[in-house]
Amino acid sequence: MISQHIAIVQDHPKPGIKFHDITSLLSNANERDRAITQLTEHFRGKVNCVAAIDALGFIIGAMVADRLNLKFVPIRKPGKLPRETISTDYSSEYAHNSLHIHKDDIDQNDHILLIDDVLGTGGTCLAAIKLCEQLGARVVGTGFLLELPSLGGRHTLEGYHPVCCAQL
Amino acid sequence: MISQHIAIVQDHPKPGIKFHDITSLLSNANERDRAITQLTEHFRGKVNCVAAIDALGFIIGAMVADRLNLKFVPIRKPGKLPRETISTDYSSEYAHNSLHIHKDDIDQNDHILLIDDVLGTGGTCLAAIKLCEQLGARVVGTGFLLELPSLGGRHTLEGYHPVCCAQL
Repeated sequence: MISQHIAIVQDHPKPGIKFHDITSLLSNANERDRAITQLTEHFRGKVNCVAAIDALGFIIGAMVADRLNLKFVPIRKPGKLPRETISTDYSSEYAHNSLHIHKDDIDQNDHILLIDDVLGTGGTCLAAIKLCEQLGARVVGTGFLLELPSLGGRHTLEGYHPVCCAQL
Repeated sequence: MISQHIAIVQDHPKPGIKFHDITSLLSNANERDRAITQLTEHFRGKVNCVAAIDALGFIIGAMVADRLNLKFVPIRKPGKLPRETISTDYSSEYAHNSLHIHKDDIDQNDHILLIDDVLGTGGTCLAAIKLCEQLGARVVGTGFLLELPSLGGRHTLEGYHPVCCAQL
């Protein structure tokens, strides 16, 4: 079970937050392979680009992009991407920040699979979707290792077909 | 040529720095595949673990770990890893910070391939090597998309067998 490899850490990154740590799953090559296979096979043939959210989303998204042999586009926190970007603010369960994407990384020809590690409130992912749409691309689906249903992210991402490998 | 897909951006992240942007290479699935294949085939059968440095190193390292079906261990900036960590300070061409690794992610049975995106001074990578060694593991080799020979990283990493897919 994938969910057995998720560690729950109290009060990280701030007091009151119950943090779901997916790094133990990354250490288990066989369980990780099952998750990546699930995401990959669901979206095979339906997208031409994988975009992923800094930083743990990069790990999942990179594996999926490599298996599907598709272009990989990073969506990052402020100050990280060196070329011209567009950006948007977002709020998640424990962060308020902004996300950035290179302006020339995607365009109206792109059908995107957006990847992050955990679907919580969906706030971070929705901000990333808006960036892709602002550049004319279509977000065909979203994929996550883990969903936290109590935070309501599936409702936030209505219309963007979230696929989650486990729930907690 | 892999090096043709590296954008050079002046004065990022700070004035005076000539930044080498590998994100264009990530967008090119075929050139990226050649690079990942080079790293993967060089280390196949020689390591049992891929560790990678936050955050662009995660993208390369994840693809290599997935292809080799090995465990993946993230080495991160402060405040990111939720469980007990050890840490060390480092200096690179433009940053002074610390790197952290979960204490229980590796041990003396591990033969590690350490991955980052760019080999510059080698300072960041050497710090990551020291973390692995402090936990008893052996760093068998290091892998990078790009080497900047003028910064001398190959000398810094003597004994750790750097494999670089391109030079600029």
